[in-house]
Amino acid sequence: MAIAIFSFPCNLLGVVASEQPIRNSSLSSELFGACLQYPIHHKLLKGRKRQCICASLSDREEYHSQRPPTPLLDTINYPIHMKNLSIQELKQLADELRSDVIFNVSKTGGHLGSSLGVVELTVALHYVFNTPKDKILWDVGHQSYPHKILTGRRDRMPTIRQTNGLAGFTKRSESEYDCFGTGHSSTSISAALGMAVGRDLQGRKNNVVAVIGDGAMTAGQAYEAMNNAGYLDSDMIVILNDNKQVSLPTATLDGPIPPVGALSSALSRLQSSRPLRELREVAKGFTKQIGGPMHNLAAKVDEYARGMISGSGSTLFEELGLYYIGPVDGHNMDDLIAILKEVKSTKTTGPVLIHVVTEKGRGYPYAEKAADKYHGVAKFDPATGMQFKSKTPTQSYTSYFAEALIAEAEIDKNVVAIHAAMGGGTGLNLFLRRFPTRCFDVGIAEQHAVTFAAGLACEGIKPFCAIYSSFLQRAYDQVIHDVDLQKLPVRFALDRAGLVGADGPTHSGSFDVTYMACLPNMVVMAPSDEAELFHMVATAAAIDDRPSCFRYPRGNGVGVQLPAGNKGVPLEWRPLVLPDRYIDHGSPEDQMNEAGLTPSHIAATVFNILGQTREALEIMS
Amino acid sequence: MAIAIFSFPCNLLGVVASEQPIRNSSLSSELFGACLQYPIHHKLLKGRKRQCICASLSDREEYHSQRPPTPLLDTINYPIHMKNLSIQELKQLADELRSDVIFNVSKTGGHLGSSLGVVELTVALHYVFNTPKDKILWDVGHQSYPHKILTGRRDRMPTIRQTNGLAGFTKRSESEYDCFGTGHSSTSISAALGMAVGRDLQGRKNNVVAVIGDGAMTAGQAYEAMNNAGYLDSDMIVILNDNKQVSLPTATLDGPIPPVGALSSALSRLQSSRPLRELREVAKGFTKQIGGPMHNLAAKVDEYARGMISGSGSTLFEELGLYYIGPVDGHNMDDLIAILKEVKSTKTTGPVLIHVVTEKGRGYPYAEKAADKYHGVAKFDPATGMQFKSKTPTQSYTSYFAEALIAEAEIDKNVVAIHAAMGGGTGLNLFLRRFPTRCFDVGIAEQHAVTFAAGLACEGIKPFCAIYSSFLQRAYDQVIHDVDLQKLPVRFALDRAGLVGADGPTHSGSFDVTYMACLPNMVVMAPSDEAELFHMVATAAAIDDRPSCFRYPRGNGVGVQLPAGNKGVPLEWRPLVLPDRYIDHGSPEDQMNEAGLTPSHIAATVFNILGQTREALEIMS
Repeated sequence: MAIAIFSFPCNLLGVVASEQPIRNSSLSSELFGACLQYPIHHKLLKGRKRQCICASLSDREEYHSQRPPTPLLDTINYPIHMKNLSIQELKQLADELRSDVIFNVSKTGGHLGSSLGVVELTVALHYVFNTPKDKILWDVGHQSYPHKILTGRRDRMPTIRQTNGLAGFTKRSESEYDCFGTGHSSTSISAALGMAVGRDLQGRKNNVVAVIGDGAMTAGQAYEAMNNAGYLDSDMIVILNDNKQVSLPTATLDGPIPPVGALSSALSRLQSSRPLRELREVAKGFTKQIGGPMHNLAAKVDEYARGMISGSGSTLFEELGLYYIGPVDGHNMDDLIAILKEVKSTKTTGPVLIHVVTEKGRGYPYAEKAADKYHGVAKFDPATGMQFKSKTPTQSYTSYFAEALIAEAEIDKNVVAIHAAMGGGTGLNLFLRRFPTRCFDVGIAEQHAVTFAAGLACEGIKPFCAIYSSFLQRAYDQVIHDVDLQKLPVRFALDRAGLVGADGPTHSGSFDVTYMACLPNMVVMAPSDEAELFHMVATAAAIDDRPSCFRYPRGNGVGVQLPAGNKGVPLEWRPLVLPDRYIDHGSPEDQMNEAGLTPSHIAATVFNILGQTREALEIMS
Repeated sequence: MAIAIFSFPCNLLGVVASEQPIRNSSLSSELFGACLQYPIHHKLLKGRKRQCICASLSDREEYHSQRPPTPLLDTINYPIHMKNLSIQELKQLADELRSDVIFNVSKTGGHLGSSLGVVELTVALHYVFNTPKDKILWDVGHQSYPHKILTGRRDRMPTIRQTNGLAGFTKRSESEYDCFGTGHSSTSISAALGMAVGRDLQGRKNNVVAVIGDGAMTAGQAYEAMNNAGYLDSDMIVILNDNKQVSLPTATLDGPIPPVGALSSALSRLQSSRPLRELREVAKGFTKQIGGPMHNLAAKVDEYARGMISGSGSTLFEELGLYYIGPVDGHNMDDLIAILKEVKSTKTTGPVLIHVVTEKGRGYPYAEKAADKYHGVAKFDPATGMQFKSKTPTQSYTSYFAEALIAEAEIDKNVVAIHAAMGGGTGLNLFLRRFPTRCFDVGIAEQHAVTFAAGLACEGIKPFCAIYSSFLQRAYDQVIHDVDLQKLPVRFALDRAGLVGADGPTHSGSFDVTYMACLPNMVVMAPSDEAELFHMVATAAAIDDRPSCFRYPRGNGVGVQLPAGNKGVPLEWRPLVLPDRYIDHGSPEDQMNEAGLTPSHIAATVFNILGQTREALEIMS
C-alpha cells in the first residue's frame, strides 16, 4: 500500500492522513507499514487462493535496484485479466503497478511524477471500461506508463523512449489500446468528441473517456472542445485530473509555486466546497421526505450557503454544458470505481466531467517531496531517489540562452521574458529568479503568449517569447497575424529546434525554418555554437523594428569561448544571397556582378559592416 | 433616432419597445418618428446654440442614395470634439453616425451589420475614454467603421477596402487610434493584457479596453487570455459585445439559427436573470441598512433565488478571475456612459468584464430583418436594402466545392463536413441543407475543428474540414500533431488560397503551400479550374490512408465543363519531380535518366496510370 505523505486536503484522503509531514521513508514505514499490510493480504489469500501475494515494494520501503515483487500484476497482461478482481485486489494491483513504474523508470528515465499520480485512476478505468472497444484518451500522454503496463506492453517498458522502443507518449501505431497519439497538450477532449460523434454516426455504443490534467485545461483548445461538446451533447466522459500542476512542473529553482492562471483558483474553490455539498445533499433529501414550506426554506438557505462558500453555484464546466461530478479523491479506489460505474451505467447523459483530485508523484516519497514532483527524470537509484546525471564540460543551449537574456535584461529594463508553462524547459526560471517581475508564465497557452507579447511590444517593451519549436506551431497564426504582419518587434527563442531524441517526433522542431522563413518581416537566425547564440540574443534585442527569431537545439554547447560577462554583440546577417528578382542572360561573371555577389562585393560589404566605407568604395572602384 | 425593431428582451430596451414587429419603414415612422424627434432637438438647440440640428436619416426614413444630413457629426473630426456634448447630443451623434455608416457602406460594400450594432458603444467609449492615450481594441475589427469615422478618417470612408484606401479592419499603420491590427478573431484580450502589463511596467496610467463579440468568445485564445488576465490582475476592461452571433453570420440558407456552442446558453441565462439581480441589489442594500438576523435570512433567500434562476451563482467570467458587470443594454446611451464612467473612475480593480447586449444590424430595418443581419454586403440601395450583385456566368469555387462534396456524400454515408463558424463562407450551408446531421459548425475554434476531425477519422468517418487558408494557420499544430503525424485521413478544403482582394493581407492565403507541403504525409493539391476542383474533392475522398488538402481561390470558376452529376473522378498528384536525393555528376541527359525524368519515363508513368503496363515496359526497354 502506498503511503500518504503530502499536503493534501484532509477531507479528500480516503485511507490515512497525517498533518505531520513525514521526512523520510523509514519514518513512514513505522507509521503505516504494519497496519495496512495484513488486512489486505488476508482477504486476498482467502478470497482468491493465490500463492505468494505479498507486500509490494512501497509497503516494505525497499526502494532497491532489484525488481520489486509484483505477484498480482504478474498475472495481468491485458485489462481483461483484471475483470474478476475484488476492490481490495485492485488496490493491491495499483500498489504493485506503482512499484513497477518506479522500478522501470529508474532504469530508463522518463516521465515519472504524472504516471505515479494516475495509478489508481488507470486501474479503475481499465477495470470499469472495456478497452480497446471503449476509448481512453490520455491527454499529453506522459502519464500513460501505467496504462502501457496494463495493456500488453509491460515486457517492453525497459525500452521506453529508446531507439526502436516504446514511445514515451501514447501512439496509435504502437497499440490498439492507444486510441489517440499524444505529446502536445490539451487535444484529448477534441479527439474524444470526434470519436463520440463518430460512434453515434456509426450506430455503435462504446464509451469514450478523455483524461486531462488541470494544466492542460489552461489551453484554449480544451475550452473550445468543451464548448462544442456541451452543444453537440454526445455521451462522453471527461476526467479532469486535478493535481495542481501544469503539465510541466510548476516549480522554480527556488521551490514549488502555485499554478498560474485563474482556473486553478476556481478548482480550489470547488474542492473546498465539498463538505458543504455533501451536507446539501443530506438537507435536500430531508426536505423531500418531510415536505412543507418551513423545510423548503431550510433547503433554500442551504443552497445559498453552498453557492456562497464554494464561490460557484454552477461551475465553469456546467456553464459550458458539461455535467459536473466531483471533486473525487483520485487515490481512493472505492470512490473511483463507484463513480465510474455509475456514470457508465447511466445512458444518454451528454458530456460528463468528473473532477478527480490526485497528487503528482504519489506514493514515492522522493517524488512527492521534490519541487518538480519528479516530472521528468534521468535514470535514478530507487533507494535514494538520486538521479544519475552525467557531468558535462558545457551547459545546455537552454542555459546559455537564459544567461544571454539575463545579460541583456541587466542593461535594458524593457527586456521581458514570456513562456507557456515551461519555466524549467526554457531556462527562464533562471531569468525569473533574477527578474521576478519581468518574467511571465501564461500557462499552456502559446496562442495567448504570442499575442500578449505583441501587446507588450506595442507599448515599447522588448518581449522575448521562449517556446519550443514544435510548440510554437500552436501559435502560428498569432506569429503571422499579430506579430509579423504588424511588424512588431517580438523575439522568438525557439528551443528544441531539430531532432530531440527520447521525446520523439511530437517534440522535434522539424518545421520552424520553413514556417518562419516564409514570413515577409521575420528575421530568422540559427547559431552554429553557443557563442553565436549569445550574439543572436543580443541581435534580437537590438532588432526593434521587426520580429526576429533564433532556433537552437536540445543538448549542450560545443565548448567555444563565451563572450565576456555573457553579453553578446549584435550581429550585422547582412545576408549575401541572390536578389529577389530574375537575373537576365549573360556570362556567369556578369551575372554574379549583376547579383552583387563578386569577391569585391563581398569584401566591400565586410568593409561597410566594419565602418570602413572608404575602403569599401575603393574596392568597388 | 434609430427605431427598435427586433426580438429583443423587453427589459433591456432603454427607449422604446413594441411587441408587434414592424414590417416596413413607413410603419415604424408612424409609430416612433414624431415622439423622439422633437425633445432632443429642442434641448440641443437650447444648450449649444447650433444651427440646423435636425433629424438624422433614419428618423425621417429617408433611406435614399443622397448623403443624409449629419449636422452634429459634421462637427466631430476626432474624439476630442465630443467631450462637451450632452447625453442627448451623444444620442443624436449616434444616430447620425449610424446614418453615415449606412450611406458609406451602401456605396462601397463592406461589413455593415456589426458596425451598426456598436454605434452607441463606439460613441460612449470615445466620449468616456481618452484615445489614443487610452487604448480601445476592436476584436476582429469589422465593427470598426464607426470608430474610423470618429477618429479622423470620415473623409476616406468612400475608399474603404479599395486599392490604396482604408482597410476594412483596424490597422496600426493607418491611424494611431488603431492600437492593434485585426482581421482574425479573438486576439483582443491577449493584446490588451499585453498593453496593460506594458503600461504597468512603464509606470503609465492609461486605460485599456478590449471589445469582443460573443462569437469571438468561442475561440480558445479568448479563454487563455481571460485565464491569464484573472491571474495577472492588471487593470483592464473587456467589453463582451453579446449580439447572439458568431463573428460571421450564424444563418443558413434557410434562415437564422441559434449560435453554436454552449457558451451562448450561459450568456442567455445571464440575460434572463437581470431583473432578479436588480432585486438582489435592492434587497442587499435594504438588509445592510436595517440589519438583524431576520433580514439576513431574507437576503440569503434572495441570493438563492438569484443563483437558481440565473443558473449561475458566479459566471464563467468570474470563475476566470474577471469582475463581471451586466448585462447592459448596448443601445442605451445613458446606461453605457454611466457604467463606463463608473468603471473608469474605479482604480485598481483588476480585469473587469462588462457584458453589453447589442443587436447586429441595429437601426437599419433591412439589416435587422435579414438572416445574416447584413454582416458583409455588396454595394446596395439604401432605400430598398437591395444589394447590387453582379451576375456572372460561373459560380464561385466555394459553391463548386460544396456541390462536389455533396456529390461525394450522396454515395458515401461516411463523408461529413466540418467548419469553424463559416457555413456561408465555405459553402457548407449547402451541405448542411442536404445533410443536416453530417455537417458540424464548431464555432470559431479551428484548433478544435481539426482535432475533432482527427477523432472522427479514427472511427472510420471521412471528415472534410473546410477552413480558409489563412484561418487554418490557427490550427497548424493540430494539422501536424493530430493529423499528419498520425497519418489520419482528414481532408482539408483550403478556401481563399492566394490573394483575396478587399479583405486584405489578414485574409490572404499566402502561406499554405509552404506550411502544408513540408509535412511528410500530407498530399497537397491545387486545381487549375473548377472541373479539377471536383476531381480533387473526389480524390481526397478516395485517399483514405493519409491526410490530404486542396487549395482553391476566392472568386469564380473559369467556365470549363463540369463532370456529369457533379461527381469528380479520383486522380492518380503521381508527381514527376526530382527524387529526394543528390544526383551525381554526368551529362545532363544521364542525370535526367538517373532522376527518372526522361520523355520515356514520363510516357511510361502515364501508361502505368492507365493500366497499360505492357506498353510501359516496352517504352522503357
